[in-house]
Amino acid sequence: MSTSTTTYFEFEVLHQSRRSRARLGKIHTPHGVIDTPNFVGVGTNGTIKALDNAAVEQIGLQLMFCNTYHLMLQPGTEVVKQAGGLHRFINRSMPIITDSGGFQVFSLAYGSVADELKSRGAKKGEGHVLKITEEGVLFRSYRDGAKVLLTPESSIAAQKDLGADIIIPFDELPPYHIAQDDLKRSLARTHRWEERSLRAHLAHPQQQAIYAVIHGGVDLELRQHSCEHLTQLPFDGFAIGGSMGKTKQEMHHMLSHTLPFLPPDKPNHLLGIGDLESIELSIPLGIDTFDSSYPTRAARHGLLLTQEGPLNVTKGEYAKNHLPPERNCMCSTCQHFTLSYIHHLFKAKEMTAMTLATVHNLQFMMRFMSDYREKISLDQI
Amino acid sequence: MSTSTTTYFEFEVLHQSRRSRARLGKIHTPHGVIDTPNFVGVGTNGTIKALDNAAVEQIGLQLMFCNTYHLMLQPGTEVVKQAGGLHRFINRSMPIITDSGGFQVFSLAYGSVADELKSRGAKKGEGHVLKITEEGVLFRSYRDGAKVLLTPESSIAAQKDLGADIIIPFDELPPYHIAQDDLKRSLARTHRWEERSLRAHLAHPQQQAIYAVIHGGVDLELRQHSCEHLTQLPFDGFAIGGSMGKTKQEMHHMLSHTLPFLPPDKPNHLLGIGDLESIELSIPLGIDTFDSSYPTRAARHGLLLTQEGPLNVTKGEYAKNHLPPERNCMCSTCQHFTLSYIHHLFKAKEMTAMTLATVHNLQFMMRFMSDYREKISLDQI
Repeated sequence: MSTSTTTYFEFEVLHQSRRSRARLGKIHTPHGVIDTPNFVGVGTNGTIKALDNAAVEQIGLQLMFCNTYHLMLQPGTEVVKQAGGLHRFINRSMPIITDSGGFQVFSLAYGSVADELKSRGAKKGEGHVLKITEEGVLFRSYRDGAKVLLTPESSIAAQKDLGADIIIPFDELPPYHIAQDDLKRSLARTHRWEERSLRAHLAHPQQQAIYAVIHGGVDLELRQHSCEHLTQLPFDGFAIGGSMGKTKQEMHHMLSHTLPFLPPDKPNHLLGIGDLESIELSIPLGIDTFDSSYPTRAARHGLLLTQEGPLNVTKGEYAKNHLPPERNCMCSTCQHFTLSYIHHLFKAKEMTAMTLATVHNLQFMMRFMSDYREKISLDQI
Repeated sequence: MSTSTTTYFEFEVLHQSRRSRARLGKIHTPHGVIDTPNFVGVGTNGTIKALDNAAVEQIGLQLMFCNTYHLMLQPGTEVVKQAGGLHRFINRSMPIITDSGGFQVFSLAYGSVADELKSRGAKKGEGHVLKITEEGVLFRSYRDGAKVLLTPESSIAAQKDLGADIIIPFDELPPYHIAQDDLKRSLARTHRWEERSLRAHLAHPQQQAIYAVIHGGVDLELRQHSCEHLTQLPFDGFAIGGSMGKTKQEMHHMLSHTLPFLPPDKPNHLLGIGDLESIELSIPLGIDTFDSSYPTRAARHGLLLTQEGPLNVTKGEYAKNHLPPERNCMCSTCQHFTLSYIHHLFKAKEMTAMTLATVHNLQFMMRFMSDYREKISLDQI
């Protein structure tokens, strides 16, 4: 295992900024191109909440993030495989990325460790971690109570069934508060798990690319070590995972000292972070893609993103505002509807309100990232 | 007041079936044509639930029913007027019909009379009738606790602010169980209220048409009397309201003995009834339009309408069915998504499921009515 030999996946750097590590690029996948830097919408269950995938493609979302953990439990990856893979199942012609399921499983274990491990009953909406070993994680499905063993191999097998363009190796998500020794041990295990994942992937590449996940929490030496270790392996790109610190400053500090250890010719993804400020901070450091449910979740709570900052459309001041959310926005919400009407739909508890807000926020993110790409091409960032 | 003199509203009968009272027609309004017989979608708060009005127009819904009671309380008719009327407020270019608010107010009073009249507190989601007099109905807004007086004149004023193409006079909805004398008294009051409504309307026609509401419950003589009384007045069309009986047979019996007393050159609307069986029974009797929340509410519960009967997509048998809901349906749901995926979205509690199902059911209703129009043109009904 030395360098990637894939031909169906390529990261093309169009322009390297002279000002920072920011770069303009194109990720080529079997389902088309992702212009970078770009925002990755989160469609946990195979749909962006409140939208359908036909609408999402019209908005131009080039990469969608789906969660293997959720899809494993509902509808089950075998159903998706039978449908011809995730793209066909959810009717998406453009690229998809799936995660390993590790994040969700470990969130269950460490969210409130003791509680989770003690109560094994079938609490609705939660899973239950039964055992964590070198082999993997045994948990109980919140859907039917069945025991599920998630290992590097089974996670990759699930992601093979789903057939996303980009997949992610199984990793351990250490708890937030962790002793240095434990973090080191966790990182070593994550590396072993990622190698097992990579091996399983390379046995059946299926035209999928696989990104390594860089761990090490906020420990700069461990982050460097993780980069040095994982860049030796033929991964197609790198995702930054694990704890990013408590503040955006800590995250910035960590990323500044991590990204230089990643190769300039492979794409970098920041896992689970996509608020505007973090994007702004991270693009100059060399992050190419960001996934986050923030813009769509905010929309469902009535928060509309605009160039003048977020606007809470449920506030009384918008009840009689007969202008669109943004004058120059070309999204179908701004083209057809006013703040007053959207305000009314939220007040009347119409779910259409969430749809209209989500369309706008997603289109806003497309424009926000496209503006960044332009700035990079002009060396303004 | 003798016959209607409007030029902006016309009911054109294209073909009178030789088999029944069914007729093929076109209702011309300031916002375009409604082919009849047709289904009228219910958009209580100014939106079909789970859809936006741009999508609804694509589906081809030619008439949408909005509720004055709801819009009076949220966002308030003055906001809608300020926006330039309901069409502009909700972004609908095609015809709209509003009701008087009477139905909702009286449902509150008679739904469980004693309870409603005793408890005057602000129970969430309910209003409270304080007093019913010859003048109108005084009730307490569930939104802000303010006292609201709904009279024939204020209902028409509200409907003038909304500016729908077709409006409805204020009527009394008698309780389900009512003595013959009380029903007679209620009918007489309804007739007085409808005349007051008509007078208020004719003072400012605003290019709106107004349909009378025929009452009389299941009493055939009273229904006949109501027809004879209201057809003397220059109403533009007739809606059948009030109690239709406990069974579809009772409804059919009542309609069979009521519709012959209505003029053949004016459109007939059946209020709040739109299940497939009732439509089938009523078209041969001369009903031209049907409003009902049934197809859209059913959709939100996973019931998909098909030519082979309704299908509950949440059932396990659809988990692995990779076909669209209907093979020959041209709706965007059937064009893009499978039963298996829609099943999955319902199981995963994604609101997108409701949107996809609603799109299909509404498109199904459009096709269902278009098939009826074809059958009438061929004298098959």
